[in-house]
Amino acid sequence: MTDDEQLGAGLGGAPEAPTGEVAPRRRSGGRAGHERSTLPPQRPWKQPRIPYRPTEVLSVDELESIHVASLRVLEEIGMDFLDEGARDLLKAAGASAEVGTQRVRFDPTMVEERIKTAPSTFTLHAPNPAHDLIMGGDWTAFGTVGSAPNVADLDRGRRIGNRADYQNLVRLFQMLNSVHFFAGYAVEPIDIHPSVRHLHAIYDVVTLADKPFHAYSLGRQRNLDALEMARIVRGVDEATLDSEPSIFTVINSSSPLRLDTPMLHGILEYSARNQVIVMTPFTLAGAMAPVTLAGALVEQNAEALAGITLTQVVRPGAPVIYGGFTSNVDMQSGAPAFGTPEYMRTAMIGGQLARRYNVPYRSSNVSAANAVDAQAAYESVFSLWGAIMGGVNMLMHGAGWMEGGLHAGFEKAILDAELLGMVEAFLDPVPVDEDALAFSAMQEVGPGGHFFGAQHTQARYRTAFHRPLLSDWRNYETWQEAGSPEAPGKANRIWKALLAAYEPPPLDPAIREELDAFVARRVEEGGVPTDF
Amino acid sequence: MTDDEQLGAGLGGAPEAPTGEVAPRRRSGGRAGHERSTLPPQRPWKQPRIPYRPTEVLSVDELESIHVASLRVLEEIGMDFLDEGARDLLKAAGASAEVGTQRVRFDPTMVEERIKTAPSTFTLHAPNPAHDLIMGGDWTAFGTVGSAPNVADLDRGRRIGNRADYQNLVRLFQMLNSVHFFAGYAVEPIDIHPSVRHLHAIYDVVTLADKPFHAYSLGRQRNLDALEMARIVRGVDEATLDSEPSIFTVINSSSPLRLDTPMLHGILEYSARNQVIVMTPFTLAGAMAPVTLAGALVEQNAEALAGITLTQVVRPGAPVIYGGFTSNVDMQSGAPAFGTPEYMRTAMIGGQLARRYNVPYRSSNVSAANAVDAQAAYESVFSLWGAIMGGVNMLMHGAGWMEGGLHAGFEKAILDAELLGMVEAFLDPVPVDEDALAFSAMQEVGPGGHFFGAQHTQARYRTAFHRPLLSDWRNYETWQEAGSPEAPGKANRIWKALLAAYEPPPLDPAIREELDAFVARRVEEGGVPTDF
Repeated sequence: MTDDEQLGAGLGGAPEAPTGEVAPRRRSGGRAGHERSTLPPQRPWKQPRIPYRPTEVLSVDELESIHVASLRVLEEIGMDFLDEGARDLLKAAGASAEVGTQRVRFDPTMVEERIKTAPSTFTLHAPNPAHDLIMGGDWTAFGTVGSAPNVADLDRGRRIGNRADYQNLVRLFQMLNSVHFFAGYAVEPIDIHPSVRHLHAIYDVVTLADKPFHAYSLGRQRNLDALEMARIVRGVDEATLDSEPSIFTVINSSSPLRLDTPMLHGILEYSARNQVIVMTPFTLAGAMAPVTLAGALVEQNAEALAGITLTQVVRPGAPVIYGGFTSNVDMQSGAPAFGTPEYMRTAMIGGQLARRYNVPYRSSNVSAANAVDAQAAYESVFSLWGAIMGGVNMLMHGAGWMEGGLHAGFEKAILDAELLGMVEAFLDPVPVDEDALAFSAMQEVGPGGHFFGAQHTQARYRTAFHRPLLSDWRNYETWQEAGSPEAPGKANRIWKALLAAYEPPPLDPAIREELDAFVARRVEEGGVPTDF
Repeated sequence: MTDDEQLGAGLGGAPEAPTGEVAPRRRSGGRAGHERSTLPPQRPWKQPRIPYRPTEVLSVDELESIHVASLRVLEEIGMDFLDEGARDLLKAAGASAEVGTQRVRFDPTMVEERIKTAPSTFTLHAPNPAHDLIMGGDWTAFGTVGSAPNVADLDRGRRIGNRADYQNLVRLFQMLNSVHFFAGYAVEPIDIHPSVRHLHAIYDVVTLADKPFHAYSLGRQRNLDALEMARIVRGVDEATLDSEPSIFTVINSSSPLRLDTPMLHGILEYSARNQVIVMTPFTLAGAMAPVTLAGALVEQNAEALAGITLTQVVRPGAPVIYGGFTSNVDMQSGAPAFGTPEYMRTAMIGGQLARRYNVPYRSSNVSAANAVDAQAAYESVFSLWGAIMGGVNMLMHGAGWMEGGLHAGFEKAILDAELLGMVEAFLDPVPVDEDALAFSAMQEVGPGGHFFGAQHTQARYRTAFHRPLLSDWRNYETWQEAGSPEAPGKANRIWKALLAAYEPPPLDPAIREELDAFVARRVEEGGVPTDF
């Protein structure tokens, strides 16, 4: 593949060429060459694998201490389950539900036995099969920012979430090849009434994009709507959906040691349908969890094990992911901190725990920065270091997460796409064969020569190295003559170029018709009743 | 130790309290409390260790292929040694020197046997013994930027190197506890005539600071002067200097496959005196080395092995460090690129090679960025990821390196001090004991509570987490009211506060007198003759 072909193949997430698979849906039209040339270079879409041994922060014995302490918490303190149905199920499965309260306590053996049925690896199906993702093993996948209430860019600053920005972020993430799935609403589309927000927002993500997606667990009816839309967009029947995980939902415990009603309904309804639960305690050390990292991890692990146990009680074999989200707070202000040395180590220990239980692992790319400056970059790369060397399978908030999750950033999305692309290249194997060892090239060039003109170089230079999306490698004088631009300005131009070149992925007209009809009917019915 | 005490102990590199050792030289005066309070928080000075298993990018077999190919390069192609004395020594030791040329070829067995005498671990002695560093094993140490021709800060922009800036950078790095040694002139003091530059520049580094330092190998007389100044400042005799490595010099090969005259003199004179050689090929893939990473590493390894062999021929047991500095070029412009995915992997493989030869490993914290923006941060953290997970023992250019080494930055020095401090905290062990597991704290707080007020939290919160130097964790509104500051502006205030609070480390008057006299005499003699 020549360099220009690679550039072309990398655009717009066109999955056909790079994966070598036959895509089921074709683009309606080609893109003119001159349009392509204005777009930044990207690697082709490809799900990466992590070839490196994960970093083990804790010894086997230390890890076991966390495990044993978590089981003790579940046995002696227990957790509050704010749903009677969930409590009844757990009780029938051998847990001890305290009469007249919401407290459930777990026998350690029950937990250890139940979690064994959780699958170590499964496929998360995408609307476009070429974008299917494997969850587990050494596979990894990078998601978008999710759930930010605000959105920001350089031109218009920070503002409340809205559907226009939400849609543009969906389009942008569809265009970015290093973004593999949608991790919730990149920004909350506040201007859609909550009664029907899920219908429109899911409609947007499945019509403007074709990568795997998330739906929020906000009550039974919304769950059913999301499951039905996942079925429709994949063009499959109920039985197929039931055998093929096609949507995921993040379940956050209300730490410490509590699972609230909508979250429990999410587990009950998604697990029953064999869809993916990402069980993620949000255990901020010093706030919702003990101030010691080991203590916060014990709490995280207890809550995760309780949630995973429930998924397997609901349906043995239901896909579930162990989510780690332990960080620390700024003890001066109480503000959550991200990408810290504490975060890095808990991200890695979270991976150790998930591997101990033989389930896929979720971590995140996070930053507390308010601006797309050095801090935004270093907190993100430190997060990625923790996640990748922790053996992450599902990276939430991979692109665009700012301000501790309080805003989604267009420029940060591009910065993160650069970081994720670099991480993907870092995960590429280094070929070591006769050709790569280059003895004859060194013989040709000899002491004191140079390799620019060597045949060995000429034959390889176009594709030898990762090409940056954002980095500015011009010399100082040229850069200064160009006005001393910094990263955010270039990121601003890149996301605009990508949006300008965006075109929606092809969608079978019958599927679109069925989606349109479903959303129209459900909106007509009023969606999900609210009291406002 | 209370939080305030920790803050105080962290200032100015005061090594006494945190290490618990008796410092041999005392400060002349204390520092007032109100001055302390304006200074940013720092960890106490402490040499870190890397508790994590290094990442192995190559398999044992692949690593062996690099090794074998390097030996083949040295045997069949050979290297040019631009000094007759070095060639004679190598010939006497069994190498084959081609008559009438500078080419030397090495028998593989000779190389393998000779390098065995290089020590795996040694101490690099500092002017202040409390700042001694162990090189090797799981010990790591972070150095300053070295050898930049230009210097920059936000106030005065970029300018040619000069002594005033050089001295201020020495003062600043003395104040930064995460900076453990001086890796050459942070910026070249161009305004000192080259005949006497080494005398004044070394005088500055040993009087304004007391951490281990580097001298350049620029001919026999300068080497002798540097060794004598290292002896004087430590207050030891020649025999002690000869048994205690007290200064280091970086030897760069003129890749491909050539060692020039001053570099060879450096090896001959420093190794003969049992001082430290950091043998570092500068192998840019696609320029001075093959375009393939494996090929560039074969060249790096061949040159490193040749240099290490020479150190051991000169003096078996002489301390030597394996330097890895393989990166790639931008194939569009030919400009060197740093902190790339290629850099990360070669940094890690360099560590694998150094461990194979059982010698300490040197890597670097590098960036091609022109401004202290997101790019400067992410290229640096990716470099650190490669270095730390590569098991680096000596991190050159740890703080302040910008623009591919073409300028030293005051604000970048602070950014890097933040990154290095975070890395140090990341390397801290996570305690896992009864207390840290916090079962009783969770019992006290219970489901749905919070830990802010818990006794377990109150007893620990002041020192529980790493405190950032630069990161701004204020909420968006507060941050915006403060004028939406970004990282470089805060870094600017921090280095000024540190310089304002700087005071020189104590120096025995007799030692100062001897240094003064030595420099005066050598300056009087004209230093080292130049032709201008």
